[in-house]
Amino acid sequence: MSLSMYQASVPVFARGLSMLSKLLTKAEAHAAANGLSPADLLEARLAPDMYALTRQIQAACDAAKFGAARPAGITPPSHPDTETSFAELQARIKAVLDFVNGIGEAAFEGAETRAVALKTGSGELSFTGQDYLTGFALPNFFFHAVTAYDILRHKGLPLVKRDFLNLG
Amino acid sequence: MSLSMYQASVPVFARGLSMLSKLLTKAEAHAAANGLSPADLLEARLAPDMYALTRQIQAACDAAKFGAARPAGITPPSHPDTETSFAELQARIKAVLDFVNGIGEAAFEGAETRAVALKTGSGELSFTGQDYLTGFALPNFFFHAVTAYDILRHKGLPLVKRDFLNLG
Repeated sequence: MSLSMYQASVPVFARGLSMLSKLLTKAEAHAAANGLSPADLLEARLAPDMYALTRQIQAACDAAKFGAARPAGITPPSHPDTETSFAELQARIKAVLDFVNGIGEAAFEGAETRAVALKTGSGELSFTGQDYLTGFALPNFFFHAVTAYDILRHKGLPLVKRDFLNLG
Repeated sequence: MSLSMYQASVPVFARGLSMLSKLLTKAEAHAAANGLSPADLLEARLAPDMYALTRQIQAACDAAKFGAARPAGITPPSHPDTETSFAELQARIKAVLDFVNGIGEAAFEGAETRAVALKTGSGELSFTGQDYLTGFALPNFFFHAVTAYDILRHKGLPLVKRDFLNLG
């Protein structure tokens, strides 16, 4: 009747980050094959007041990093959002993937009831680790990961949902 | 160190479905206020070969319905995807919300190891209940729910991520 907080977080974020890396590889090849500049894709967005692709990737990386670290009671490394190229975004994803994969299962002992507090633009939110993971961290990660996919589809990349699910 | 399969599924899908209902209410009001026909939004899509908004909502409803039912070993009701209006989509969401909320915690006894098999366009996939939920059902639900949000943002609706997270 139960699954581990580790299994519900680390492998899910890792699979999603790996998917984003593959999307960027396809995006870079698509730009090269179609005479687009990298910025034509990296700076693309779905609405004037939404994040562009670069910022969506950075936000997905942060969502995964905090989403795995907070229930485990770990302070994650800081990343200053300075990436401006496919190669730099790939390095950011790899750094977060290595961090997330390095959190051992033992750190999740008691994670479901661990107090998680975070400041947002509209005040502080308080969760148990379980409610944070299922009610905030996972939806927040997928929000940015799917929007990155949607931006690339909108820009003409021939992707299918199976690319997003990344089932291997 | 663990959370229940029930808590990792039913409330997550229920919150997401409730969010989609609120998005549609805002979309209908936005169309009325801006002289758009309902079809201007319901038939909007981000790429010519992606689902339009109506189909994204239907797919999100199915993802939630199966995502909660399969680990619980329940056969969900069938919905033939005939909706063509905001009111009909709201009724579909409500039906799925009622179904999902009606699955009691007891049905999730042993859900994490329950065998789940599903046919896809590229063959049959086999999962444990836990791997199905975290590796397929939740990503699949968010794929359609976020894309519905993204379509509406792309069409000019003044939404913010907090609308999507639907924290109440």
